[in-house]
Amino acid sequence: MRKLEFWYDFASSYSYLSAMRIEAAAADAGVAVVYRPFLLGPIFKSQGWTTSPFNLFPAKGQYMVRDITRVANARGLPFRMPEAFPANSLHAARVALAGESSGWIAPFTRAVFEAEFTAQRDIADPTVLASVLERIGVDAQAALARATTPEIKDGLRAQTETASTHGIFGAPTFLASDGELFWGDDRLDQAISWAVHKAR
Amino acid sequence: MRKLEFWYDFASSYSYLSAMRIEAAAADAGVAVVYRPFLLGPIFKSQGWTTSPFNLFPAKGQYMVRDITRVANARGLPFRMPEAFPANSLHAARVALAGESSGWIAPFTRAVFEAEFTAQRDIADPTVLASVLERIGVDAQAALARATTPEIKDGLRAQTETASTHGIFGAPTFLASDGELFWGDDRLDQAISWAVHKAR
Repeated sequence: MRKLEFWYDFASSYSYLSAMRIEAAAADAGVAVVYRPFLLGPIFKSQGWTTSPFNLFPAKGQYMVRDITRVANARGLPFRMPEAFPANSLHAARVALAGESSGWIAPFTRAVFEAEFTAQRDIADPTVLASVLERIGVDAQAALARATTPEIKDGLRAQTETASTHGIFGAPTFLASDGELFWGDDRLDQAISWAVHKAR
Repeated sequence: MRKLEFWYDFASSYSYLSAMRIEAAAADAGVAVVYRPFLLGPIFKSQGWTTSPFNLFPAKGQYMVRDITRVANARGLPFRMPEAFPANSLHAARVALAGESSGWIAPFTRAVFEAEFTAQRDIADPTVLASVLERIGVDAQAALARATTPEIKDGLRAQTETASTHGIFGAPTFLASDGELFWGDDRLDQAISWAVHKAR
């Protein structure tokens, strides 16, 4: 089956837009989604940025909220910015990785983004992650414990380095099996089409 | 007639994509395009950037070329990056403003973008601008002379300040008559639809 890698940071507002539709859009095209959580922080830092560009450049930040609100409205999707932006997404990303082998990374990803961008919950808070895990029927205590093992910590670090190696500089990014990159929620349809027709 | 302002910098590669399709797309929807050339340089400078973000952040710059190539291919549009990027667009923007009252700003805009992003001409060169003007049937000597009058120089400076006031931080940007902003070639359809249905 054809595959498309979905690279996202749980703090990324545009990644929320893609997370809520990628599974259905890819399935319609016969493409399997491979979830690749990573951290934008180290990548931004290497560009000299200490926080999100939406905070560093206020006009861009104001526009982003307006833009996502319009897109979300058109899709019938709720959208509310969390009080602290960008959220510290380290722990959520580790938990997601812990769910990869057990098969719940996809529903966990959607549930985290929903908690953050519709219910304005702080995803850095372990109790929030625990309630998200319970909501999708996963043993929260076991998952949170596994998320802090060296295997998972190193795995996330390696995944973030791999993102950099692929030339990824923002999120969401879609990576086809031939290395072709697509950046931004507005490139998702193009990326799926590439996965079907070009990336044989 | 409904209007949509098209804010662009002649050095902007994504503005090229919009310049080549905005007239037809807007006309189909019964919307008049108002051409608003401005300079991104002072806006980037206020963000602490000394050149285009595509040069400051190489991964982003490499992606931009690939992304525009894909989009241009899909539209049957040629695309080649000029040797010097970003071009010095000061003089082209002044000439464009000089053509506003005479009614040739639209064809001039398209012809400059074509010279730059298909024929790889240096639009900072007055002889290139002269040949563009001749191509669209405008008296080149008179237009280039008018472009250096205080009225036009001050006009471009004021227009760039107005861009900032509107919250514009990049190009292309589309501004509806109610102040709603849309950034990026991929938001052109949304902007036209807003001009028709919302910005009464």
